[in-house]
Amino acid sequence: MQAPPRGFQQSEFERRTTRAQAMMVGLKIDAMLLTTEPDVRYFSGFFTQFWLSPTRPWFLLVPVEGKPIAVIPTIGVVGMLDTWIDDVRSWTSPQPGDDGITLLTSSIQELPKHFGRIGVSLGPESHLRMPAQDFDSLRRNLGVMEIIDCSRLLVELCSIKSEAEVEKIKFVCELTSDSFNALPGFAKAGDSEREIVQKMRIDLLKRGADNTPYIVSASGPDGYDNIIMGPTDRRLQNGDLLIIDTGTTFDGYYCDFDRNFAFGDASDGAGQAYETVFKATDAGFKAAKPGATTSDIWRAMWSILEAGGAEGNDIGRMGHGLGVQLTEWPSITATDDTLLKPGMIMTLEPGMTYEKTKQMVHEENILITDSGAIMLSKRAAAELPVIC
Amino acid sequence: MQAPPRGFQQSEFERRTTRAQAMMVGLKIDAMLLTTEPDVRYFSGFFTQFWLSPTRPWFLLVPVEGKPIAVIPTIGVVGMLDTWIDDVRSWTSPQPGDDGITLLTSSIQELPKHFGRIGVSLGPESHLRMPAQDFDSLRRNLGVMEIIDCSRLLVELCSIKSEAEVEKIKFVCELTSDSFNALPGFAKAGDSEREIVQKMRIDLLKRGADNTPYIVSASGPDGYDNIIMGPTDRRLQNGDLLIIDTGTTFDGYYCDFDRNFAFGDASDGAGQAYETVFKATDAGFKAAKPGATTSDIWRAMWSILEAGGAEGNDIGRMGHGLGVQLTEWPSITATDDTLLKPGMIMTLEPGMTYEKTKQMVHEENILITDSGAIMLSKRAAAELPVIC
Repeated sequence: MQAPPRGFQQSEFERRTTRAQAMMVGLKIDAMLLTTEPDVRYFSGFFTQFWLSPTRPWFLLVPVEGKPIAVIPTIGVVGMLDTWIDDVRSWTSPQPGDDGITLLTSSIQELPKHFGRIGVSLGPESHLRMPAQDFDSLRRNLGVMEIIDCSRLLVELCSIKSEAEVEKIKFVCELTSDSFNALPGFAKAGDSEREIVQKMRIDLLKRGADNTPYIVSASGPDGYDNIIMGPTDRRLQNGDLLIIDTGTTFDGYYCDFDRNFAFGDASDGAGQAYETVFKATDAGFKAAKPGATTSDIWRAMWSILEAGGAEGNDIGRMGHGLGVQLTEWPSITATDDTLLKPGMIMTLEPGMTYEKTKQMVHEENILITDSGAIMLSKRAAAELPVIC
Repeated sequence: MQAPPRGFQQSEFERRTTRAQAMMVGLKIDAMLLTTEPDVRYFSGFFTQFWLSPTRPWFLLVPVEGKPIAVIPTIGVVGMLDTWIDDVRSWTSPQPGDDGITLLTSSIQELPKHFGRIGVSLGPESHLRMPAQDFDSLRRNLGVMEIIDCSRLLVELCSIKSEAEVEKIKFVCELTSDSFNALPGFAKAGDSEREIVQKMRIDLLKRGADNTPYIVSASGPDGYDNIIMGPTDRRLQNGDLLIIDTGTTFDGYYCDFDRNFAFGDASDGAGQAYETVFKATDAGFKAAKPGATTSDIWRAMWSILEAGGAEGNDIGRMGHGLGVQLTEWPSITATDDTLLKPGMIMTLEPGMTYEKTKQMVHEENILITDSGAIMLSKRAAAELPVIC
């Protein structure tokens, strides 16, 4: 399996910007102000792990015409000038008294005023990665200029993946599938969850992953009770069920799926729940076509789960978008009703409570194409895999 | 090297909460509303990688009396009930129409009103991990209750590490030092930066690290021009200088330091710059005593750098706090002037520009004690290490 090329052609960033600008005209905004890693990277190609340091704010302005403008700490100038962005303005940060706000204000005020409005992500699933006080200062500085929410524009734009984006996600889905398939060779009863997870981290790196920012596990006799904590130091025993869920990355793009394993022997209850979520995934896969909605997928999966004895679902949804982030808009829920379009990459994640406290969750990653869904992860085994 | 125990005794969370509550009385606030992973984990012990999913907001209220109260999505209830928190309120999320805001509002309104004010992190180095629109709704819902900034309280509180916290950071500093010391055994001319970094990731995992969320590198003939991008696919050649900087974790606590390596041969300029930042670190180490300030450290280091021919510093500071996060308050700058106290863990990170475009940055991690600083990382070699 050959790793796809890293980075993107400049034309990719031009297309993203042009598509955004057409939508910005519809929203009547002069520019978008972006503050988070995924948003800044999406338009600029600026790709650094340094966002992990919460100290300094970073800003990218996407004007309704022309190329994006970066307003960033000096520490990032060399890296930003290596992208397709030419206009890079900087200040020495950290500077608690004025951490870029004066420079950001003047950069916004200098933009041509068509509408007198600026878009900022204020809505669901978003946050501003800058001090709230500084955002208030910016609002005051901008005076009559209105700040409106552009979160929907951004999630819709990013939800349609380009071919180059699909290749990256497909690659990481495949290598992660291979690692899950290899897991019975390096995990055994007596190992702790943490030991198995660390062996899988190493296996993923050796297969060409860049990193595994997300890898959780849960286990217990005949079932597990959650899917977001762990790994713990609990040692696997005969009769246990183990789930591992991972968001592993290649070139800044995520896979996000899980696999279940039985140790020694699985109870009928666990085996049946596994078959139920497996069949629900098939039903969701068939329903995932352009023109259908996320809620169509939800109903297709839930009817199987309900018939299979599901006592509820604590997760709140049964799948979501993914790509630059581990989880992206939209959500597969009963009421989400987002229209599916070719180029969307989604997880199908049917989950059910059974025997009162046990969870069974299964997950695959798919691409929506003109003719229906394509599996990006290598489909799990139809029967619960057993590690002897 | 034995790994320290994971997690904390309940008494640790009780102490953190009691200390915070004393400071909250000083600030005249009835509670703090926390929204970010480090803050929620600090008071609750709720430790999950799931924050990587940006979809759902999570809230923790720390009232001025009594235990913290969690207001969280149902997906996290099992995990939160496993901490010392008893009062866990939940809603099914994602729910774009009301993602916890009604429940959060009533949870705040039910608190005893001593001051009629709530603290939220609004200041430098902070952000709100919730949609800005939802924060506006919350403000409106709370009516006459005032929301004030408590970011300074939180950073001061978290800057003083407990013995258990120190043990975790010391452990990860030591294993990362060992990995850096082993690097000349697994890195050679002809390898790409990315290959070396991936080998180091694996080496760190094998030495007992949980993960390496941050590992960047830069290289070039006789020097590098930045320290936050990379790793790239550039292949190391004789005459190159390589820097690797890593934030590796154990049980949710970070180290953060770098090491420089010359391949084959180093120029006099690079060697001298290395000696200069090494000596500057010594000077910073000596200045890092209780009663002195971060700016005293800065001046001690800068005088050495200046005498050594530093042409500037693009990084904006020469060290910072660390612990639950890769970088924490305070910053070592000329004007920061934070008083050093026993229990603070800091990086010393003198950096200089030389030969116009080249950077030389060195970094160690230290603990401030009653009698001065202690090195947590194993001190780098006094002369630039050469990989033949």
